[in-house]
Amino acid sequence: MFFSKKTLALILLSVSVLAAWLTAQDTDVIKLPAPQMTGGKPLLDCLKARQSGREFDVEKLSAQVLSNLLWAADGINRPDSGKRTAPSAVNWQDIDIYAATADGLFLYLPKEHALRKILGEDVRAAMGKQEFVKDVPLNLIYVSDYSKIARGTDEDKRFTSGAHTGFIGQNVYLYCASGGLVTVIRGAIDREEMAKVMKLRPEQHITLAQSVGYPKK
Amino acid sequence: MFFSKKTLALILLSVSVLAAWLTAQDTDVIKLPAPQMTGGKPLLDCLKARQSGREFDVEKLSAQVLSNLLWAADGINRPDSGKRTAPSAVNWQDIDIYAATADGLFLYLPKEHALRKILGEDVRAAMGKQEFVKDVPLNLIYVSDYSKIARGTDEDKRFTSGAHTGFIGQNVYLYCASGGLVTVIRGAIDREEMAKVMKLRPEQHITLAQSVGYPKK
Repeated sequence: MFFSKKTLALILLSVSVLAAWLTAQDTDVIKLPAPQMTGGKPLLDCLKARQSGREFDVEKLSAQVLSNLLWAADGINRPDSGKRTAPSAVNWQDIDIYAATADGLFLYLPKEHALRKILGEDVRAAMGKQEFVKDVPLNLIYVSDYSKIARGTDEDKRFTSGAHTGFIGQNVYLYCASGGLVTVIRGAIDREEMAKVMKLRPEQHITLAQSVGYPKK
Repeated sequence: MFFSKKTLALILLSVSVLAAWLTAQDTDVIKLPAPQMTGGKPLLDCLKARQSGREFDVEKLSAQVLSNLLWAADGINRPDSGKRTAPSAVNWQDIDIYAATADGLFLYLPKEHALRKILGEDVRAAMGKQEFVKDVPLNLIYVSDYSKIARGTDEDKRFTSGAHTGFIGQNVYLYCASGGLVTVIRGAIDREEMAKVMKLRPEQHITLAQSVGYPKK
């Protein structure tokens, strides 16, 4: 025998602590159903219907709609290269999409097409100033990780992250136009307060937020 | 008789000078064919196919394709309100789209759905650093008029104009995905030099450029 009983017990304990930790990590990742990558309304009809709306029903989005929406927004459309539905300069992919719902705050993981739970509490009320924000089933928050943008001043990065958010936000607008959902992108937000609630790192910068829901009945 | 012959002659001369001037103005505005506002590929198929490409054929875009493309980009989709296919904060509509082709430099007029000729010479070579830019049939140049953005510092306006350009640029990406066109949005551009060539006013700021053409045969 190579190990003393005491050492073996310690190794077994470490392994079980590690296993428990890994399990805890896994339970925080919620796999989304496979997204639809074909269909929807014809593009020009979507462009004709594209508009901002601020009157939402409180009905939750189904897992399938959330899956489609996040994939449309900035999912991987070319698995070989990991490239996405929205472009980014030098393929920096600096934008992370957070989703604030009644169930908590989640981070979209494009590779896994899954959500990682960040907070278990409902933080929607902190995600914007308009009255509807606290009740809308989904608030997307776009966050640029400046550490992924290899060049330029912080002001350059702010511009770049704005453009990158625009590409993604328009995908959401058009998905909503196709699927009969209501959406509005929002810039009048308290980024500092939101970053605190979301527990963002210093290199993470909120660009814009976007609310999504079904039309008010 | 109220006027002397001399006065009458002067009035007639003025009227004909005015008429000539108006005619000259009109010849600089080129009406586009009515854009298609229905059809195209299903949205999710467009998102699946969305990508950047840099290999273009030199074949010119037809007037109908150019019309559809500009309408898709940022045309008026709600004539009653003048609202557009791309959103803008507070409906500022600060982005103008310029088009550089072999025939010259043109400004897209959304209300008239027309092009105003700005320059009669081919300035494509000045619209970017990559080799393909001088030969690609269409270079769109997105220009923000900061005087239309009512609030914020110039850095705030730069961010806002970046997001607004992103919305429009993604529309172009998806129209190209639908119509089998190749496109790439470009940020590595000499904005100062381009502004000089384009004779922009000081309040006009170039955000990004985007090349469009048919796939290389």
